Amino acid sequence: MLSSPSDLVVYECDAYTIEKARPDAVVFPHSTQQVAEVVRLCNRHDVPVVPRGAGTSLAGGCLPVGGGVVVMLTRMKRILQIDLRNRLAAVEAGVLNLQLTRALAGTGYHFAPDPSSQGASTIGGNVATNAGGPHTLKYGVTVNHVLGLEAVLGDGSIVRVGPVADPAGLDLVGVLVGSEGTLAIVTKVWVRLTPDPQDYRTMRAIFAAVDDATNAVSDIIGAGVIPAAMELMDRGIVAAVEAAYHFGLPLDAEAIVVIEIDGLRAGLDEQQERIVQICRKWRAREVLQAATANQRELLWKCRKMAVGAVGRLSPSYCIQDGVVPRTRLPHILRRIAEIGRKHGVRIVNVAHAGDGNVHPILLFDERDRDQVARAVQAGNELLEECIRSGGSVTAEHGIGVEKIGLMDRLFAPADLAAMARVRRAMNPQNRLNPGKLLPSG
Amino acid sequence: MLSSPSDLVVYECDAYTIEKARPDAVVFPHSTQQVAEVVRLCNRHDVPVVPRGAGTSLAGGCLPVGGGVVVMLTRMKRILQIDLRNRLAAVEAGVLNLQLTRALAGTGYHFAPDPSSQGASTIGGNVATNAGGPHTLKYGVTVNHVLGLEAVLGDGSIVRVGPVADPAGLDLVGVLVGSEGTLAIVTKVWVRLTPDPQDYRTMRAIFAAVDDATNAVSDIIGAGVIPAAMELMDRGIVAAVEAAYHFGLPLDAEAIVVIEIDGLRAGLDEQQERIVQICRKWRAREVLQAATANQRELLWKCRKMAVGAVGRLSPSYCIQDGVVPRTRLPHILRRIAEIGRKHGVRIVNVAHAGDGNVHPILLFDERDRDQVARAVQAGNELLEECIRSGGSVTAEHGIGVEKIGLMDRLFAPADLAAMARVRRAMNPQNRLNPGKLLPSG
Repeated sequence: MLSSPSDLVVYECDAYTIEKARPDAVVFPHSTQQVAEVVRLCNRHDVPVVPRGAGTSLAGGCLPVGGGVVVMLTRMKRILQIDLRNRLAAVEAGVLNLQLTRALAGTGYHFAPDPSSQGASTIGGNVATNAGGPHTLKYGVTVNHVLGLEAVLGDGSIVRVGPVADPAGLDLVGVLVGSEGTLAIVTKVWVRLTPDPQDYRTMRAIFAAVDDATNAVSDIIGAGVIPAAMELMDRGIVAAVEAAYHFGLPLDAEAIVVIEIDGLRAGLDEQQERIVQICRKWRAREVLQAATANQRELLWKCRKMAVGAVGRLSPSYCIQDGVVPRTRLPHILRRIAEIGRKHGVRIVNVAHAGDGNVHPILLFDERDRDQVARAVQAGNELLEECIRSGGSVTAEHGIGVEKIGLMDRLFAPADLAAMARVRRAMNPQNRLNPGKLLPSG
Repeated sequence: MLSSPSDLVVYECDAYTIEKARPDAVVFPHSTQQVAEVVRLCNRHDVPVVPRGAGTSLAGGCLPVGGGVVVMLTRMKRILQIDLRNRLAAVEAGVLNLQLTRALAGTGYHFAPDPSSQGASTIGGNVATNAGGPHTLKYGVTVNHVLGLEAVLGDGSIVRVGPVADPAGLDLVGVLVGSEGTLAIVTKVWVRLTPDPQDYRTMRAIFAAVDDATNAVSDIIGAGVIPAAMELMDRGIVAAVEAAYHFGLPLDAEAIVVIEIDGLRAGLDEQQERIVQICRKWRAREVLQAATANQRELLWKCRKMAVGAVGRLSPSYCIQDGVVPRTRLPHILRRIAEIGRKHGVRIVNVAHAGDGNVHPILLFDERDRDQVARAVQAGNELLEECIRSGGSVTAEHGIGVEKIGLMDRLFAPADLAAMARVRRAMNPQNRLNPGKLLPSG
């Protein structure tokens, strides 16, 4: 257990840079049983309990906003079982996403959710936020890959749901995944393994206008092709990537889209040809097709390095997470630019375009209060615009503390009351991660 | 409202033929608002409320076992919206599965869940049981196709969850789907629409041994091919189909498997060839490949008519619903045969083999008490064998009243307690469909 101020300061923030909150103590359990004991102890002393994995949350999901004990799941990092025949793996919550990916390399199977944080984030954190990633378009978000969970409820009892493909009884997996630690502390996860695709085709299309890029994305889906990924980068993020890594990307293009298809080899070339045609129809000035595995990796690298490169543009930044119906992408990207101009906040964009999931990155200097205030204001406005466009304020990062004030814009009082009742059922005293997700308490 | 004995008798059973229970009254609301009023009224008078769609439940899910008011959703049968661009439809709970399928014909999209009851069953009923079907193998069960729900909770309040692809807040869709009316009465459903595949290849393989058939099924999946469907029929059910419809099926074959692949045209022939090779490796004596749409329909017809044909074999029958890991299929089918012999109950089998979902059909005469008792005993034993084999007692029909006694074999006390607490959160007085799903009350 850590309790000295110098130790605790490490746990007062996560990857969400706007708010901070220091815990009273930090514990490092090694088993579900120990987590249950911590919860029971905290109950006896009326102390909040905040579960935390790698702390990569972008919405303040693991900030101990009301103080209390932070339960680090990072010591629970054993891969307990890999069962290829039944296509499942059992892991402790602190196993890194990449650790599981590496353990599966060469087996012909993989764990499909691939958040950009996958080198650092834990499977437990992926479950808490129902994480997505570039390949969500074809393979779905984390909940589609969770077969079962072991978790500690608010009263310290241990429950196990699954792992079966067809659950009998009430399916608690769905409500636990994405509940951000407000219902239970997930300690063990049974995940579905996905067969590796036989082959890939990866392309990079360069557009002179953002609208052309988003229209191409819509048309590709409309043509019945479901790419594994369609990732959009706008001019601002391309400039940052280029300054950092010199890939030779064109600085005058308004949008670059990385498109990948995968599956059985037969048919891939035909699909690729169709995608190239659609991009050309929308005036793509270049569609580069990776001819080798190396080229494929290079095309992906420029996307995967994008967020890291933003550090060169600004001392601080906040990655927002909004989602709109795919057909509203042109609209939301135009509005994001307008909102940035209005508040004098520079905003660059990456987007899981195929899902309608935008990640505007707001640049500011956290030492300048006025800049922080304007960034927060611009962030709220663009999320409100997502709601008005028929979308939502998070596709994959969660509500955390950051967006809790927007919940009553998304849900009617009766809907929030039903959620609060479910929380009360599993976390009766609201001691598990209080002040997150639901506005009530 | 119906309340005379002669009217009520119609509602005392569903497609589960072993138990009966007569309601005190039957009401036919036209709107969510009216359903909410019924629930509030029943609360005031402490009367149970049992929602019912088409009554095709095979587990007694809509039997009013404690009396009360049956709420028929069949008057709520409007398709409210079909939005192809955003790939969703909004329907009232009483819309028939087939009615939606027909409304979508020619649009290029369809609603993927296709339970064998689809001509009669309602979307609300599909949601209540989280229904599957032959195409579940590739396309998933009902919950994978539900984007949002409107529902009346136990206190008469109306909640709406979704329809968004990436829900913020607690995702109540997952726990409501499959909850068999014990949490809420679902009145409106937003469903995902699936693009029609560009093309199909449909095959019928004939095996001399059941083990060969199930091994072929496992090997096809193991080869990385995910067929849209793999449906197994054993010798007993083939005899029934043949007696009824004279398709010319071989009466000496131990198993027939109907296999369908679908998707983009390019690649289908190669996949088909691979499947044929695997079937041959497992000594299939014939693999018929449908060359025309007519032939495809004929191959499907022999599977789809199977359950109906059972009526020729026996005055009464009960379709069981068990699921095991796919690799345990040979074992469970052998054990089902042994259990039938032991109790002197004739059992024939259809199975969604690709999912490990078996549907043993137990034949008996309901006028003969001894036969009924032996059928019930054999049914329980084969479900226990599914549990012992690492499976579950329902893949798609639900727990209903039939399997409630098995819940404590599937779940630990803490798990059942967590489910009961969630039920209490949404259905506090347990007046919605009492005596179903959860053993407590």
